[in-house]
Amino acid sequence: MSSSSFAPLLNDNFLRACLRQPTEHTPIWLMRQAGRYLPEYRATREKAGSFMGLATNTDYATEVTLQPLERYPLDAAILFSDILTVPDAMGLGLSFAMGEGPKFARVVRDEAAVNALAVPDMEKLRYVFDAVTSIRRALNGRVPLIGFSGSPWTLACYMVEGGGSDDYRQVKSLMYARPDLMHRILSVNADAVALYLNTQIEAGAQAVMVFDSWGGVLADGPFQEFSLAYSRRVLAQVKTEHEGQGIPRILFTKGGGLWLGAIADSGADVIGLDWTMNLGRARAQIGDRVALQGNLDPNVLFAPEAAIRSEARRVLDAFGRPPGGGHVFNLGHGISQFTPPDAVKALVDEVHAYSRRLREV
Amino acid sequence: MSSSSFAPLLNDNFLRACLRQPTEHTPIWLMRQAGRYLPEYRATREKAGSFMGLATNTDYATEVTLQPLERYPLDAAILFSDILTVPDAMGLGLSFAMGEGPKFARVVRDEAAVNALAVPDMEKLRYVFDAVTSIRRALNGRVPLIGFSGSPWTLACYMVEGGGSDDYRQVKSLMYARPDLMHRILSVNADAVALYLNTQIEAGAQAVMVFDSWGGVLADGPFQEFSLAYSRRVLAQVKTEHEGQGIPRILFTKGGGLWLGAIADSGADVIGLDWTMNLGRARAQIGDRVALQGNLDPNVLFAPEAAIRSEARRVLDAFGRPPGGGHVFNLGHGISQFTPPDAVKALVDEVHAYSRRLREV
Repeated sequence: MSSSSFAPLLNDNFLRACLRQPTEHTPIWLMRQAGRYLPEYRATREKAGSFMGLATNTDYATEVTLQPLERYPLDAAILFSDILTVPDAMGLGLSFAMGEGPKFARVVRDEAAVNALAVPDMEKLRYVFDAVTSIRRALNGRVPLIGFSGSPWTLACYMVEGGGSDDYRQVKSLMYARPDLMHRILSVNADAVALYLNTQIEAGAQAVMVFDSWGGVLADGPFQEFSLAYSRRVLAQVKTEHEGQGIPRILFTKGGGLWLGAIADSGADVIGLDWTMNLGRARAQIGDRVALQGNLDPNVLFAPEAAIRSEARRVLDAFGRPPGGGHVFNLGHGISQFTPPDAVKALVDEVHAYSRRLREV
Repeated sequence: MSSSSFAPLLNDNFLRACLRQPTEHTPIWLMRQAGRYLPEYRATREKAGSFMGLATNTDYATEVTLQPLERYPLDAAILFSDILTVPDAMGLGLSFAMGEGPKFARVVRDEAAVNALAVPDMEKLRYVFDAVTSIRRALNGRVPLIGFSGSPWTLACYMVEGGGSDDYRQVKSLMYARPDLMHRILSVNADAVALYLNTQIEAGAQAVMVFDSWGGVLADGPFQEFSLAYSRRVLAQVKTEHEGQGIPRILFTKGGGLWLGAIADSGADVIGLDWTMNLGRARAQIGDRVALQGNLDPNVLFAPEAAIRSEARRVLDAFGRPPGGGHVFNLGHGISQFTPPDAVKALVDEVHAYSRRLREV
């Protein structure tokens, strides 16, 4: 279907901030905003039976994506899905054991496994694109919908490790021992991710985000060669507009603050930052080349309301003036499953109220 | 006993590099060099029955400290102990379950527990100081002995969490909700750590290192207030010389690259860096104020010998010229228990050989 058949957008603050245009308030959304901290999410998850049962069912994915918007006046929705759908579609067999992280049935550690990799048929990811279209319709123009993918390097971490890791020993061993194989994995991943994001855009995503969740575990040198170069390769292929609408592209590298200058030259419109980076310093460093997204420590949401509000103001003040110069408020990482839902209410309220006040002064 | 009764030092390259004096080669030692990757360590550990049985027995602690020096021409020894001895001496009840990390029997999360904290009687840590003196004697002047402690913030993480953590939720909740209590914990920790390090120096330690292993999990702002300020308070109290010998003080903040400028002003003589920071960039940023220690990714040691050697050269080249301007080679984190011992042999050989060549050109 054509995007022009979707309802017109009522709140475009998020898209405007991404493109460094003036906004009424600093827009806010939260990584993993549709998630386990919400009792209504846990109820839907229960019905679905499993995480993948939830993610692969269009109705459930639509339902949980919209849940946080019913509670809070957030300025964007993000597709409910997982960063590992692409390697799953490559045939690696993704599963989620209860209470544990993702697991792949097959790991990619030798030449044969690497050579067998290919950009997957997008039909295998049809459930994602169907969810995008369904969510976009259900949003009915309320706020924009963000699509996303893991970065080539972050996907490779899981593909080589076979799941989460605390030392990245397998993926780094392969990288240092056989850089040729790692480059081949990353090339396939980059082209797959670009196609995946473009297909999400065609299905209705109004912005896309690349999660380089594990770029920050790399050494200086290898980061540029094995992570950033392939995020750049993705961004070079992802649409910058669709049916006349600009499509902001966000790149988030957890722990990437030391490489901000290079990341800002990746081709992304928006750079996501974790809480270790001072937003004012980041802005001074990269000027107006890109917008910034972030960067409250998610653990602030365990503090009393007054502290949440004061830490939110601290982030807005750090970004500085003019307050509308391209700031999307977010956490510096996904929201914790233990977060009290009322804490999010206070946060969203403070970001909206205080950023409006900043615009009046 | 008086340090003057110890044997004269035969290899002072490490101490000279810490004080930014010329050296014959770039000195190298490895964080956790006495550890599980060595079969002889595992044999002693087996005899001792438990980790704390190993750490609290002077003979065993001496034996394992010297084991890596028998295999490799390392330029320094580091006391075999744990970073959590101080909170254990405060009465929190440290234990190590097999195959798991450290656990405290009592956690510090409320006002009563915080108010009960005090600088412990150093007699409770006599086993550490006895080990220092015993190791120094056994070294017989071969290389200098480094003493160490966890930083006030890093100790607080374990004291509040009760063990390791992947999100630091408890300690950050306390910090954001009750900064007054957190400051009280950190004040006691800082004074305890300073006294602990000074007593190690009196017992024979020729350099000391503060491990701020978890400083990097803090947001910009809280890092300076809750981590760095208390490392500074430690360093302000730790001896800069003992019996006429300069005592280099090393501060290592994992993930602290973004705050390098402030860390270099902490009062430390040497700043430890993890692998995310380019050493040449670090040196350009802080000039000759302090020496630098680091920063090879420990996972390089899983690569074939040629790659290990080339990555070691890359670190030395990044530090740049003059090669003797205050560089102590190390990993950017503790060595992995899975490291093949021969990999360390290649690394030490390459650092010595290549850094000597750099001095000849």
